[in-house]
Amino acid sequence: MATSLPSHPIGVFDSGVGGLTVVRALMDRLPFENIVYFGDTARVPYGVKSTSTIEHFTLQIVDFLQRQNVKMLIIACNTMAAVAAEKVREISPLPVLDVIESGALCAVAESKTGGIGVIGTPTTINSNAYARAIHQMDPDCRVYSQACPLFVPLVEEGWLDHPVTRLTAQEYLKPVFVEQIDTLVLGCTHYPLLKPMLSTMTGNLKLVDSAIAIADQTAELLQQQGLANTQRGMPDYRYFVTDVPLNFRNVGERFLGRNLGAIEQVSLDRL
Amino acid sequence: MATSLPSHPIGVFDSGVGGLTVVRALMDRLPFENIVYFGDTARVPYGVKSTSTIEHFTLQIVDFLQRQNVKMLIIACNTMAAVAAEKVREISPLPVLDVIESGALCAVAESKTGGIGVIGTPTTINSNAYARAIHQMDPDCRVYSQACPLFVPLVEEGWLDHPVTRLTAQEYLKPVFVEQIDTLVLGCTHYPLLKPMLSTMTGNLKLVDSAIAIADQTAELLQQQGLANTQRGMPDYRYFVTDVPLNFRNVGERFLGRNLGAIEQVSLDRL
Repeated sequence: MATSLPSHPIGVFDSGVGGLTVVRALMDRLPFENIVYFGDTARVPYGVKSTSTIEHFTLQIVDFLQRQNVKMLIIACNTMAAVAAEKVREISPLPVLDVIESGALCAVAESKTGGIGVIGTPTTINSNAYARAIHQMDPDCRVYSQACPLFVPLVEEGWLDHPVTRLTAQEYLKPVFVEQIDTLVLGCTHYPLLKPMLSTMTGNLKLVDSAIAIADQTAELLQQQGLANTQRGMPDYRYFVTDVPLNFRNVGERFLGRNLGAIEQVSLDRL
Repeated sequence: MATSLPSHPIGVFDSGVGGLTVVRALMDRLPFENIVYFGDTARVPYGVKSTSTIEHFTLQIVDFLQRQNVKMLIIACNTMAAVAAEKVREISPLPVLDVIESGALCAVAESKTGGIGVIGTPTTINSNAYARAIHQMDPDCRVYSQACPLFVPLVEEGWLDHPVTRLTAQEYLKPVFVEQIDTLVLGCTHYPLLKPMLSTMTGNLKLVDSAIAIADQTAELLQQQGLANTQRGMPDYRYFVTDVPLNFRNVGERFLGRNLGAIEQVSLDRL
């Protein structure tokens, strides 16, 4: 593999469209960085698949992004981060950040009482990856986790502040609220779109948005490693998906908060 | 390919677990038939994927089932039936039934006023396949379709008669109820599990369950073609899935209403 250069793009990947919330945070925080995004839209969602299947798919994507000469990797999918982050760090010579480590770091820094709630997909929650990461950083934290399987379909339906979504959130969050927490980690890249609704329900709780957390850590990492792009032109954004991009564009522009431009489809056979 | 024999199994396939509602109806209606079920759990759901991807996956499954010596094929997935049924009939020498044709036939037979509502996943509804099938059978029918993207995740969450599900159903069905319909087709294999809740909301509407419709048509087809199994022993049921079977078993036994027995995992590379 060629040496990484500052002008090379950041590689961001996700099982589908959700990781665009991370891309959005990166664009805001690092407006001169080139970005290559990969969304595995033909095989989304990963949250219901097994560990070995997720690991297999993840390594295919990493291999593809390395062939695009990315200078670092960001695992923007909580499910892949929970299941396959270790494996990615093992096989890739590039710096790797993942949303779980970033979310955990941010939660530990933000929490004053050490009581931290985590919400995510069933696979993320069952993997216990957030609790493990948080306990590694601070063994005194108490972590309360809750799977919210309906949040992703509700966000993709666009019901961001709908009575159904509100009722679903009340049902899911009831057991979390009875615990003494002061911080709630949005452990899925779809959830930042629910932040306005959730913040009206959670009162004084601090909501940790791992998209923003990982953008901050990316800035720091690029500085430390001398990999920050010094060119000041318009950055180049490329989007690769494994299925026909129609639905990706419709939902994705809501996630990204701007136009997506060209989207390239990659056949699964090329992975 | 070897000639089909009456003792050969019926091949039923779906993108995941939903087609087990068809298997259940077959077991009840045809208790001596052997059945091979294929659920593509590593790539579920199909409802959000593109036409070409769905077609590609479908033909892989048909090929696999033909290698299991099935005597006929049942497309138990509405999305695959909507997108790929024609293609399957083109390439397979076996008799093929699909849930859309069966549901449409049953709806046309049941409706007295010719006003028929259809609910399903976005892909099924956008394909317009039910309306097309119904109009081919009776051009005078009026068809009103409504996509219900949240019903599948709600069923898989097990919220079969939950306030959230009820509120979601009210929202989705509102525009259908204002039309003059007397029949509502449950155009997704997950929806029969919502039948008890839906029937309390729909009053005098006839609910068409395509699982039951297709079981009736299977019985007829096997008789006509001399393919009904004459052996009277315990039938053999085999279940193939593409992902680790844990989740398939948990949700599947609810769909099937009985124990699943052995489940075999097929690697995607073997398709």
